[in-house]
Amino acid sequence: MAVCGHGGNLALAAELFPGAPQPWLDLSTGLNPFAYPFQMPDEHSFTRLPDLPEALEACAARAYEAPPPIQIVAAPGSQALIQALPRLHRLDGKPSPRIGILGMTYAEHALNWRAVGARVQEDMDLDALATMDVAIVVNPNNPDGRLLPPAALLDLAARLSKHGGLLIVDEAFMDFEAPETHFVPVMPENGVLVLRSFGKAYGLGGLRLGFALTGPKLAADLRAWFGPWAVSGPAIAIGRQALGDSLWLVEARKRLETMGTALDRLLCEAGFAVLGGTRLYRLVTHEKAAAWFARLGEAGIFVRRFAERPLWLRFGIPGDAPALSRLAEALKVGIR
Amino acid sequence: MAVCGHGGNLALAAELFPGAPQPWLDLSTGLNPFAYPFQMPDEHSFTRLPDLPEALEACAARAYEAPPPIQIVAAPGSQALIQALPRLHRLDGKPSPRIGILGMTYAEHALNWRAVGARVQEDMDLDALATMDVAIVVNPNNPDGRLLPPAALLDLAARLSKHGGLLIVDEAFMDFEAPETHFVPVMPENGVLVLRSFGKAYGLGGLRLGFALTGPKLAADLRAWFGPWAVSGPAIAIGRQALGDSLWLVEARKRLETMGTALDRLLCEAGFAVLGGTRLYRLVTHEKAAAWFARLGEAGIFVRRFAERPLWLRFGIPGDAPALSRLAEALKVGIR
Repeated sequence: MAVCGHGGNLALAAELFPGAPQPWLDLSTGLNPFAYPFQMPDEHSFTRLPDLPEALEACAARAYEAPPPIQIVAAPGSQALIQALPRLHRLDGKPSPRIGILGMTYAEHALNWRAVGARVQEDMDLDALATMDVAIVVNPNNPDGRLLPPAALLDLAARLSKHGGLLIVDEAFMDFEAPETHFVPVMPENGVLVLRSFGKAYGLGGLRLGFALTGPKLAADLRAWFGPWAVSGPAIAIGRQALGDSLWLVEARKRLETMGTALDRLLCEAGFAVLGGTRLYRLVTHEKAAAWFARLGEAGIFVRRFAERPLWLRFGIPGDAPALSRLAEALKVGIR
Repeated sequence: MAVCGHGGNLALAAELFPGAPQPWLDLSTGLNPFAYPFQMPDEHSFTRLPDLPEALEACAARAYEAPPPIQIVAAPGSQALIQALPRLHRLDGKPSPRIGILGMTYAEHALNWRAVGARVQEDMDLDALATMDVAIVVNPNNPDGRLLPPAALLDLAARLSKHGGLLIVDEAFMDFEAPETHFVPVMPENGVLVLRSFGKAYGLGGLRLGFALTGPKLAADLRAWFGPWAVSGPAIAIGRQALGDSLWLVEARKRLETMGTALDRLLCEAGFAVLGGTRLYRLVTHEKAAAWFARLGEAGIFVRRFAERPLWLRFGIPGDAPALSRLAEALKVGIR
């Protein structure tokens, strides 16, 4: 079962709740609310054709601890890679591959594989995944935060490799999780591709920057797929600043943990049960989730609901004390 | 015969001419040297996921005078569309289509169609083009500026439509040419796709923004191909500012004409023969083009050469009086 729709759609929020007080408190995405405090790039980043993203990719390889000979390919957002992979696979491979997706997760993987005629099965377990042509694991998972350890992924990759299968691990929400849970540092060269999202971790979703980490063959195919100047000048410049700043990442993680704990307390007091999450969001359940969604929306607070899981809501982490207070107020008023 | 390599590669310039005075005067691209004086978008353009580009596309449709029911699709650069079209065609259509390209032109069209196994013929004439599965016309042409009138393109489109062929017109350098030569306002709905480059016209190549104009079916295919958030927040915000500013376009055209005339004079005095061009560049020939390329490079002025046309050079338009003077100085010194 797929998670329908996307977070961050404030046009939809305005349509659903036309009387809501402005501005919106947007808790509907998993983007870091603490945006990286970048220095605005100089005008050449905007005016000139972008340089080759080699320096940016070198920064990313260090930040993600990518082991040689793993290559890293910058793209205009990890969504662009989610769009590209099925289409690239389809042009290179057999017409109707079998794709398996672990559990219930981000819907765009299934959607894009189906768009090229692949046979997609969602909500699978690891044993079933191991028999597929392509196995997809979002880790930690969106929305429930389920986290597979690297050993489990290595085992899955080994089982897939016996019949030439590909393992795609989407680490869009991994940056703030414990380093020993990151797959990149131990990933094998063949048959594996890991996705990283710059915009989510650094709170810069508008910039469009994401990365694929994989062996040389698939990396070369992706570079040819995207062609020259795929990543914008501002994304290259800001990406280099942010990915080189490991201290900021540590500070941001602490702030996310503090705010996440405060959020948990509020949600608990309001009668929500926390089902899971990551340092960038919490998944909760409530018998009256639909009423809460409406109550919060009327208060100008937009959260994520799930068409096929009507009792679930996902809350992004509030970005500051006023945001937390505003949420607290709305939760205290309660539902009718 | 294709135009090899790309302009704007200052890393290559630095490698070829390590002793050149800095900064580079980069005349190797066809980008407008008068960058649009945009107002920096607010932080939300960088931090939030981009909105749907509907408002941007509406601005572009007005600026390009796209007639209904022609749709306009924003993409992260017209190069991204040049990458997408052959791959999209290949997934939808027959395995080895016949692609014809008018004359000698921008190499990326041929390169990307060949990458999907298409049979590509370059340097064709209009009659031969009319028999192809896909016909590609860069108009005005890069590098020689050859300009087909809309009537010729309408005729070609009609001939192609008889066997279901597709006409791709790349208007990357069209914005400053006379309105009556623009194809968009008269383009038919079916079997035609026009490319426009925002970065070249507005001197903002680092931003990555381009457009496809076509009928509803192919437009929908392209939207699905690129998926959500394909265009960055800054590109949407700056694109809206610039495309809505028709006065600036008129002023920029005047400045380009003045500078272009001054450039012509300098080139003529130095013994170059102008073969053609557009308001954004001039193509010239000289018996000692290679020596001139080296002489200019040593003076920190990077121009465009062509591997398969060793007597040709392409000069971008200098952006201000100091740039023009610097070029004049270097040309006066002459070649050894």
